[in-house]
This record gives sequence, C-alpha cells and structure tokens, in this order.
Amino acid sequence: MQTPTAEVIAIGDEMTSGARLDTNSQWLCQRLGELGITVRFTTMVGDQMQDNVDVFRAACNRVDFVISTGGLGPTADDLTRDAIALACDRPLELSESALRHIESMFKNRQREMPPRNRVQAMFPQGALEIHNPRGTAPGVDITATLNGQRTSRIFALPGVPAEMMEMFDATVTPRIIDQIGGGRLVIKNAVIKCFGIGESDMETRLGEMISRARFPRVGITVSAATISLRIAAQAETEADCDDMIRQTRAEILASAGEFVFGEGEKFELQHALTEILVSRNERIGTIESGHGSRVCNWMSDVQPGDTFIGGVVTNQFDHSAVSLRARMSQPGSGVTGADWLLAIEGYPSLNTEDDIVAELVFTFCGHDQQHYWQSHQRLGGHPGILHARIGKAALAFARSCLFNLGN
Amino acid sequence: MQTPTAEVIAIGDEMTSGARLDTNSQWLCQRLGELGITVRFTTMVGDQMQDNVDVFRAACNRVDFVISTGGLGPTADDLTRDAIALACDRPLELSESALRHIESMFKNRQREMPPRNRVQAMFPQGALEIHNPRGTAPGVDITATLNGQRTSRIFALPGVPAEMMEMFDATVTPRIIDQIGGGRLVIKNAVIKCFGIGESDMETRLGEMISRARFPRVGITVSAATISLRIAAQAETEADCDDMIRQTRAEILASAGEFVFGEGEKFELQHALTEILVSRNERIGTIESGHGSRVCNWMSDVQPGDTFIGGVVTNQFDHSAVSLRARMSQPGSGVTGADWLLAIEGYPSLNTEDDIVAELVFTFCGHDQQHYWQSHQRLGGHPGILHARIGKAALAFARSCLFNLGN
Repeated sequence: MQTPTAEVIAIGDEMTSGARLDTNSQWLCQRLGELGITVRFTTMVGDQMQDNVDVFRAACNRVDFVISTGGLGPTADDLTRDAIALACDRPLELSESALRHIESMFKNRQREMPPRNRVQAMFPQGALEIHNPRGTAPGVDITATLNGQRTSRIFALPGVPAEMMEMFDATVTPRIIDQIGGGRLVIKNAVIKCFGIGESDMETRLGEMISRARFPRVGITVSAATISLRIAAQAETEADCDDMIRQTRAEILASAGEFVFGEGEKFELQHALTEILVSRNERIGTIESGHGSRVCNWMSDVQPGDTFIGGVVTNQFDHSAVSLRARMSQPGSGVTGADWLLAIEGYPSLNTEDDIVAELVFTFCGHDQQHYWQSHQRLGGHPGILHARIGKAALAFARSCLFNLGN
Repeated sequence: MQTPTAEVIAIGDEMTSGARLDTNSQWLCQRLGELGITVRFTTMVGDQMQDNVDVFRAACNRVDFVISTGGLGPTADDLTRDAIALACDRPLELSESALRHIESMFKNRQREMPPRNRVQAMFPQGALEIHNPRGTAPGVDITATLNGQRTSRIFALPGVPAEMMEMFDATVTPRIIDQIGGGRLVIKNAVIKCFGIGESDMETRLGEMISRARFPRVGITVSAATISLRIAAQAETEADCDDMIRQTRAEILASAGEFVFGEGEKFELQHALTEILVSRNERIGTIESGHGSRVCNWMSDVQPGDTFIGGVVTNQFDHSAVSLRARMSQPGSGVTGADWLLAIEGYPSLNTEDDIVAELVFTFCGHDQQHYWQSHQRLGGHPGILHARIGKAALAFARSCLFNLGN
C-alpha cells in the first residue's frame, strides 16, 4: 500500500438538514493527513438505511480506510451497526464484553440500563471493538472485501466529538499505523503559533516545507489571523520524532521566526503576553473603547489569573501617559495597581455584512514614568473576524514592547 | 417530482486536508430544507479531476438537484467547469456575456485582467450562467441526463461564502422553485430566538410543529445555548407568507413564549436588553469577575453603543447594593453615571477538556436606591460554550428584572 487513501463519513439527519455543523470530519481529515493518508472524499448522509448502506459500499470500493462518525446510539434512528453489517453482508452478533462495558457505564452513573442499550453491544461478525472509555457506544472496526474487489477497513466511531477524538487517537491511530507498515512507528505532533503574516505569505516563506511529499508533514491552518503550523512526525522512537520535530522547528524559525509567538494547540497571544509578565513578576490592566473588548475577555481567562489585574471598557478615555498612569494609581479605577496598561481605541461597529477597515490606536504604558509606546494601525477584514484580529494585534504590540525591553 | 432530493458538494483540497472547515454545506442544507427539498448526501472532494467527475456522476444518478461550491477560480487546480463538462459529456464553450462581466469586474477594480481569467467564461454546452455580482466567477446551471437515466440539475457556485450565498438566494432559489412547480411562489423566512430551555425540551414543546411534513417548516438550531427557530413560508403572495408566519409565530409563542427574547438571525440577548434600556432611556454598566468577561464584550458591540456606559473586569468586588451604587457614582470607576449595574461573579477557568459546573452570582442593581436583585445559579457545560452560556444567563436575568419592572 503506497499512498493509502481514506473517506470520512458523518451520519445523521442533524447534519444533512443543516441543524448541526459537522466539525468531526475536519478533525479526522487533519489527523489522517498527519498519518500520511490522503482523504479523497468525505460524505454526510442522513438517517436512511439504504443511503447508509450505499455510502459504506461506495466508500469501500474507492478507498483503503473508511472512518465514520455517528449513528452508534441506542435509538431507532441509529443505523450505523446495521448499515455496516448489510454493506459487508455479515450478521450482527452480541459481544458479551461490549455488553459488560455498557452495563458498567450505567452502573458507574448509578442508573439502570434501559433494555434498548443492549443493541450497542451488537457487532457485525468478525468485527473488532473500539473501546470507548467515555460513553456507552463502543466503536466498530471491520475489514471488508466487497464483491471480491478492493479490501477496505471500516472504523465506525460515535458522533460525540470528545469520545470520537479519544477513540481515534487511542485505538484507531495505532491500528492504522500497524496496518500501513509503520508497525513500531511512534507519532508525535507539535504546533507552532504565528501572528502578523497572511496565510499565502506564510506559504511562500515556508516553500517546500509544506509540500505534501515532505516528512515530517507541516500543515498550515488559519483561525482569525492566528496561523498554526502543525508538524507531524513519525519515527521508530520518540527520540527520533523529537529530532525530526526539532529540525523542522528550526527551519520554520529560520524562515518565519519573527512571527512565531509560541507553541501548542491552545496557546494564544494572551498566553504569550502573560508568560512574559509572569517572568517579570509584573501585572497588566486594559482599557478598551469602541464597539468591542476582546483583550479583557481573553486576558481574564488566562492562567495564572493574577497577572491580569482587570480591564475597563469605556466609551472614551485619554491615552496620554499622565492620564493612564493616574488610572493605575487611582483606587477603584478598575486597573489599580497594574505595572502596565494596554489601551485599545477604535474597535469598529460590526453592524454590516461587508469588510470593514478600522483605524486603531494601541498604547502601552508603564506605571514607572519611563515607558510609553503608541502604535497607529489600520486593520481590515470581515466583521466575523475583525475584532479578534484587532485584539490579537494589540496583544502582539504589547508583547513586542515588553520583548524589546528584555533585550 | 413529489419530494425533490439534493446533494451538496464542496470541492477543494483545503477541505479534504482539514485545513478549512466547510460551512457552506451546512448553510446550503438549511436553505434547501426550507425549500422543501431533502438533502440526502453532502460530499467533499479534493482537487483530483477523476474524483470530481465521479462525484458529479454519482450525485446526478441519485438526486434531483446537485449544488456544488468551489473550484470555479481561474487557476490550474480549479476543476469544476471541466469536471461538469466531462461528467455531462458536453464540450466547453466560451460565453461572450460572461467574458464581458469578468472584464468589467477587473475594470471596476482598475486592474488588468490576467489572461488565465478567461477560463472563467467557459461553460459546458447548454449551460445557463448564474450571475455573480460580487466576483469574477459566474456560476454554472446545467441539466444533465446521464446514460438516459435520471435527469438532474447541477448548480455550481463559487466557494467564497458571500458570493455563494448571494447567488443561491438571488438566482438558484427562484430557478429551483420554478422547476419544482411553485412557479409563482414567494418565500419568506422569520427567525425567533429563545434562551433558557434545552433543545430536546424545546422539541417536546413544539411537538408536531417541527415535523418535516409541516408547512411552513420550522427548523431548530442551537448555538451556545441560544435556540433559533426558523420559520420558512412559501405562498403565492408576500401577504400569504406573512399570514403563515404570523400564525406559526403565534403557535410558538403559545408553546414556548416564556423563552422567546426576540426575532432575527443576528438578534441576541444583548440586543434584547439594549432594546428595553433604550425604551426606558436608561444606561447600563457591567462588572465581571473570574476568568471571563463575555457580557462587556457583547454589550460594547451593540448599537446604539451609548446605552452601554462601560464595563469593569476585576478579580474581586463587593456586590452589596451600597458598594455597587457607590461605583455608579464614583468618577473614573468605569461605570460612572450608569442607571443600572449588572454584576457577574464566578466565570470558571476553562483550563480543562472536561465539562465544568460553575457557581455564579448575578446581581442587578439600580442607581436609584430602590432596586436590587440577586440570582445564584449553577451552570454547567463544555469549556467551549460555558462562558457564553453564563454571559447569556446573566443578560437574561437582567432582562427579566427590567421586564418585570415594566409590568
């Protein structure tokens, strides 16, 4: 199997009716890509038996791995077990071990198991179970040869994202790696976060690094102006993975280091700013004006919370050094006792469908009578992301002020 | 054609690689459902020609309407025009009118048209154009009979959401209605927003109203604890649509009126609270503590902005009436001059993957020495939505205080 292929299937009327947005498929596409598997199709299908059978049959006839989510619940509209059994032409059989797991889940929750949950322990003949430590629906792992043609492996997972993700990482990933010949391969990921550059400029800078043929693979995703570069390494040992990641990280830093602010899936600019403040044992407050207040919202959620002394959201303020320092000294001002104040003026109204351009003034001021920086920025974008971009630009500005101070 | 069926297709490697989340398909599923069309499948496919041809062929063989997004750009990886031509076995031909439109788009932007953009004016023989007022990619509308079997109609739209949505509403919707026999039918939508009840409880209350067989259709979607009920009416005249909507709205109010806070896709609790304050000619401030500050973030974005006097985000505060009133009177406190203060204590840290339960104290206090309410609430949920739920519960609490005052 040289370049394994996959199809992702999301099952449920709530998807095809548009009531719910399918985010599972995107997550699975990313993970499969990191395993070196090309996702050729993803399919959503409603709760109609024949459509489900058709979709599983079509997928098995065109890809090596089929990963489905949803339809493993206990109720009448949960069809995945039956659809797979029909598609593979195998009878359903009760798994005693799965039944015991389901019974124990109910026992732990101190609830009686409704009789209908017994169907969750039914598996197509020859299927392996996929352990679900968080829920009552075990997953199904079955290898199917349809009409004596292509052999495919189906992994059916629940639709609940937390259950699906844990089961994919803990069980499906090692089974896939085992099959595609990386039997003893270890997989490690690293995520490098960048801000202050557009996606296509970043692509240009990274050049061959983001080629699909390269290992470790470097994936690029953008969310509200934050760029995440995901390095996915596979090697025989953890140390080899670490080496590969270290090398690729160094290449990224060499090409785009000035935009890198940290590492980790959930690491954002507010964490980067907090990190510097913690290292300096200093505290910050914020003032925001206009139609938004992203920074106080983000800073108030960071750990350790003590670093953020508080925020003020106000229609207008004076961003002279004298006035800002007075606020830091005045009891009850909302930012009393801060060492630094980050002031953002000019969040635009988002009351439009079209792109907006906003004129911002960012001020970063120290309590110590010495430090005062100001940045005038013109930022544009869609109303759905512009406030986030402004908040991030302000945090990046504050971080750069403190960063330069440290050098 | 009794119950028309549809398939939605999203095209592009950025989708199947997981780099971008496909939100177009969900939107199209919702709109098609409102037209009384059952979406049986949605498919994502990467930028491989044969896969695209296969996907269009399979779709035409199983549904009446095929709506695709993406792949209409001018570059080498934009394959949709060619794939449809191959799938339908028709040659591509240059449309002079489409070419003139594309040239005029460049002229308006004062840019020279690159020669490769000419391919965007190539259409499969017999196709109708779908006008794109916002971009250079016209859409393709073609009716195909594959192998003398089922006749399907393909609408190919760009992937840019704003272009896709405008083209679907302005051109595709009337053409679909024309074909399915509602030639002169008008379509109108209304969205009713609710808070304070779970989705399944709402479903139970609405009963037969959300049946798929009912007209006008009532759709239910949930986003961070806000429930949107969408009424989609089709009738011969606008007045008839209005009548249908009025009747269904009355039924909804009778079944779940106590949870309804307003109407309109983008109407949220902060708008509902602002509406009452504007009608009373009063202004509000906020104090938030813990690891969050959703309410000042939302309130600062509402129009008219004047109603929100400001917010303070602080690690701790005293929520006695005396202390809160003192803040409203104290110059420079961040909430000086407010008529009302909404205080929220207890946003939990979101630094976990698991569900959280938080103990909140909401206080709503008047400047006038008379009014003071407090509510202790236990709210739980996933870290991804819990802060939004808390902010909304606080806004709903403030709104109910003012609402009761008015009666």
